Amino acid sequence: MALTSEQRAEIDAQRTAPQLTSRPTVPAMEELLYTPFEVLDHGFVRVVDYMGDDGAVVQAARVSYGRGTRKVSEDAGLIRYLMRHRHSTPFEMCEIKFHVKLPVFVARQWIRHRMASVNEYSARYSILDREFYLPALDQVSAQSSSNRQGRSDALDEDAARQVLHLLHRDATQCYDDYETMLDPEGMGLARELARMNLTLNTYTQWYWKVDLHNLMHFLALRADAHAQYEIRVYAEKMIEILKAWVPATAAAFEEYRLGAFTFSAGMLKVLRRRLAGEDVGQENSGLTKREWIEMNAMLDAPHPHG
Amino acid sequence: MALTSEQRAEIDAQRTAPQLTSRPTVPAMEELLYTPFEVLDHGFVRVVDYMGDDGAVVQAARVSYGRGTRKVSEDAGLIRYLMRHRHSTPFEMCEIKFHVKLPVFVARQWIRHRMASVNEYSARYSILDREFYLPALDQVSAQSSSNRQGRSDALDEDAARQVLHLLHRDATQCYDDYETMLDPEGMGLARELARMNLTLNTYTQWYWKVDLHNLMHFLALRADAHAQYEIRVYAEKMIEILKAWVPATAAAFEEYRLGAFTFSAGMLKVLRRRLAGEDVGQENSGLTKREWIEMNAMLDAPHPHG
Amino acid sequence: MALTSEQRAEIDAQRTAPQLTSRPTVPAMEELLYTPFEVLDHGFVRVVDYMGDDGAVVQAARVSYGRGTRKVSEDAGLIRYLMRHRHSTPFEMCEIKFHVKLPVFVARQWIRHRMASVNEYSARYSILDREFYLPALDQVSAQSSSNRQGRSDALDEDAARQVLHLLHRDATQCYDDYETMLDPEGMGLARELARMNLTLNTYTQWYWKVDLHNLMHFLALRADAHAQYEIRVYAEKMIEILKAWVPATAAAFEEYRLGAFTFSAGMLKVLRRRLAGEDVGQENSGLTKREWIEMNAMLDAPHPHG
Amino acid sequence: MALTSEQRAEIDAQRTAPQLTSRPTVPAMEELLYTPFEVLDHGFVRVVDYMGDDGAVVQAARVSYGRGTRKVSEDAGLIRYLMRHRHSTPFEMCEIKFHVKLPVFVARQWIRHRMASVNEYSARYSILDREFYLPALDQVSAQSSSNRQGRSDALDEDAARQVLHLLHRDATQCYDDYETMLDPEGMGLARELARMNLTLNTYTQWYWKVDLHNLMHFLALRADAHAQYEIRVYAEKMIEILKAWVPATAAAFEEYRLGAFTFSAGMLKVLRRRLAGEDVGQENSGLTKREWIEMNAMLDAPHPHG
Repeated sequence: MALTSEQRAEIDAQRTAPQLTSRPTVPAMEELLYTPFEVLDHGFVRVVDYMGDDGAVVQAARVSYGRGTRKVSEDAGLIRYLMRHRHSTPFEMCEIKFHVKLPVFVARQWIRHRMASVNEYSARYSILDREFYLPALDQVSAQSSSNRQGRSDALDEDAARQVLHLLHRDATQCYDDYETMLDPEGMGLARELARMNLTLNTYTQWYWKVDLHNLMHFLALRADAHAQYEIRVYAEKMIEILKAWVPATAAAFEEYRLGAFTFSAGMLKVLRRRLAGEDVGQENSGLTKREWIEMNAMLDAPHPHG
Repeated sequence: MALTSEQRAEIDAQRTAPQLTSRPTVPAMEELLYTPFEVLDHGFVRVVDYMGDDGAVVQAARVSYGRGTRKVSEDAGLIRYLMRHRHSTPFEMCEIKFHVKLPVFVARQWIRHRMASVNEYSARYSILDREFYLPALDQVSAQSSSNRQGRSDALDEDAARQVLHLLHRDATQCYDDYETMLDPEGMGLARELARMNLTLNTYTQWYWKVDLHNLMHFLALRADAHAQYEIRVYAEKMIEILKAWVPATAAAFEEYRLGAFTFSAGMLKVLRRRLAGEDVGQENSGLTKREWIEMNAMLDAPHPHG
Repeated sequence: MALTSEQRAEIDAQRTAPQLTSRPTVPAMEELLYTPFEVLDHGFVRVVDYMGDDGAVVQAARVSYGRGTRKVSEDAGLIRYLMRHRHSTPFEMCEIKFHVKLPVFVARQWIRHRMASVNEYSARYSILDREFYLPALDQVSAQSSSNRQGRSDALDEDAARQVLHLLHRDATQCYDDYETMLDPEGMGLARELARMNLTLNTYTQWYWKVDLHNLMHFLALRADAHAQYEIRVYAEKMIEILKAWVPATAAAFEEYRLGAFTFSAGMLKVLRRRLAGEDVGQENSGLTKREWIEMNAMLDAPHPHG
Repeated sequence: MALTSEQRAEIDAQRTAPQLTSRPTVPAMEELLYTPFEVLDHGFVRVVDYMGDDGAVVQAARVSYGRGTRKVSEDAGLIRYLMRHRHSTPFEMCEIKFHVKLPVFVARQWIRHRMASVNEYSARYSILDREFYLPALDQVSAQSSSNRQGRSDALDEDAARQVLHLLHRDATQCYDDYETMLDPEGMGLARELARMNLTLNTYTQWYWKVDLHNLMHFLALRADAHAQYEIRVYAEKMIEILKAWVPATAAAFEEYRLGAFTFSAGMLKVLRRRLAGEDVGQENSGLTKREWIEMNAMLDAPHPHG
């Protein structure tokens, strides 16, 4: 289970008695506050606070585009229009704050999204818990031979167990020695130094605050099939949260981002020839082999997010 | 009066019935929602939404600095510590959204603060109202001779009235011709072109969303005595709002930012010599005349914000 | 002519004798330095400095993707790969600085791109020149009836001349009164106040510095057919500069951005049905009328940038 | 020695024959290009490229502040003025790109500076080298009791050697197992998974590009006495590079930032009382104990950077 009872108690202690507010409020999100969603073996993501809703996007768009937009009587239609034409500023008008517990190597990918605010648990100030990520057996996968940055099938069970044994042994020994070095009755090493002995699968946690536009940018990249599994599972939970928070925006996001595909100038030419009845093969398409495969994967089969 | 009755009606129409929320809520801010504060002759600033409070700053700091910070039993003390040591990330955990009506030349200064989100009324889509800023008589001031970017005393009343006459005449004529060019029964010029005929004191409006850290950065620069009066009056209203929203943060902000002064290395040397009893004059201080004046203004007289 | 002889002399005075450098150098860009490209009636854009080249993009990508990428023997292929997969960070490794002279209403659109650095001529410190934008006769266009933010055909010549007369008369009168109010022998009004009397077609100028990734984002939006003509002409000149600076990147940008089109999930479904031989009309497509038109414009006709 | 001969060869291979340029060129920086400065036991920092010089700061300031600033005949004086009054935008007009090799736990602090561009060596794509940071004996320090985030004196030699033994043993074992898990003839684990077994003192490397304003912000925080030693040593090298690059800016930076101190409103009151001859003690100062100590450390003793 991802959360210790101590962690649950800490989160519960923050819950305050409901109060009246005139701010936009989303009942489905109120349900989610203080509810951590478990991710991986010890991680979680939970909503700490939110600001705005679908209506706040529409309200901002109507300031920008003025009285005229009142003609667009239906809010969902306006949101779809904004998303399709990449008018992103109205989506910046909503904000969300998450509490996330995640392995350090995932945090290192996550932090590359600069348009967000972060407060991370500091191992200079505090001692990290003895918690580290060990993949589930079916996630212990071989290096992909076709994709330099990816993984392919799961290893056979014996090899996978060996991997897990090594990961567990090393993380444990490193943590044991971390404690030994820190021990104020023993070596008493400074925390800021001792932490360097921890492995990259050690869990950390942070508050991460981002606006709706940048959140969707993050989700589009990290929920993508090419993202590493260990960050993708966070993104997938957060898409569920997105749907609860701003359902019209989430629907438009799926239609125009997650389920969409961009055809290059060369691909468009091929498409026009095919629609005109021409039989086009890769060799006379002007596309590289890889582009050809990517385009046809999109045209032949239903899209994974579609 | 800054707001037309139509504008007030528009704002009132957005007010929703209070709802229950488990999010941090600030009663003093709930009072302010949907209440425009008048600024200049037709401008206003009002809070549209907010996220977090003083407690949210403390909560984020305690994630960063870990369990140890529980010793800092008093929240206000922790906030003062963060402000003094420029630990700015916990202040990024609060967010506020304003609706502002302001002259275009003020908007041009304001927008230079990039770490914020903006949706501005678009004169490509819509027709701007016939509203332009005319300074109050006592603000019609002469060019400063000592400060290239500032103004000095008010002009004498005759000259000031002449200025106001010209400003009014030109803005009115430009707006009249704007309408003439737009008239769909007449020339029917495109809005995106016609707007170029308006003067820079025409009012525009926008939604402006910013985190607490960047808000304070904005306020420190724009509430400063060197800021142009026409933006300073907005900043001053927003400092009042800051006090209602996050009183402990606002107090620390006044103590460590607005009321503070940075002594350069050279000034510190002079200070040490003076405290050691030495009689230091500008000529043997190693400071420029200007630095000397600035330093002594700070040491002799109470600080304007103090 | 866009530049006065005084402006040309100022720019020439900045030219320094060529010096040796071990930094990446692009001969075609060296030619462009200190050469203003005229835009609109008094505007220009010129390159002040640049950092990096196509090779710098490749170099950064090879740090990220490590030794393995050496297999991608051809730099242009790697750049196309980065562009296609929106791996944007290597493009951030190049930087360019422009000097731009542009009307204030264009500057107000331009500045919305926040990921750039700007130093604008300050009308608090200095007196703006008597230069304002007047559209060419064939650009004096009617409001579009189909597109709320656009213009349609040029007005007939009589109406256009009337528009130009009004624009010229008002800008001139406003500038005359600006000078009258500023006159130190007369009213002596502060510059920071007098400027509010200027019209939005007054020219300003600035230094604008941006990285290659954000430059392309700017260009994709502002060279687009939906952008206002008066900013689009700047973007078009800057695309020419892009081609001189980073030819491989510019080619990939045209292939995968300017000439590309994103099909939504719904459009992809229609496409699959059509390629399977089905006769799909708008009514049974699941697309809105507007989406239907946009998609078919792309499929039937060659792309404007293609 | 920090660099292996292989690494030196790689860097040398990038060196190109000097070419002529009309861009601002700093001879002292040309000397530094392709010269890695060794930091820690295996790290380095080197300049890859730079754009602009002190003159570019002045040039940008003169655009902003207009012709009037020509009166400020001396460039260094203008730069000091900009620095003192925190007019930061002209400093954004210069840019620098570093290649840095650094331990992962240092990289995690460094990356918190968001206003920069980064391309990091990716352990999803490539295999990290067997290089990890081991502190020098005199840096193996005890936890500070007064400062929760700091270290105090070095441990006694026996304890320090024990620490180094543990750090070395664990990093080595983790790396051995990393290789074992990766071995394509053996387990063949995906690189993106295997890396999680590495310790936080493993070296990584990146290209880091930043403008001069944000570089100084980074240096002010990271060269500070409160910064962790392992990042401070990088900052200190970079201050040397700053001096070579923009000597006038670097001098102003030392005078108005590194060597400066900000007195709070309360401290200013105490200062005024003391200068008026009053004998003020902590108990009647209105300052907290900590503030009192900080202020007096600054007033009694010469500043560490002074």
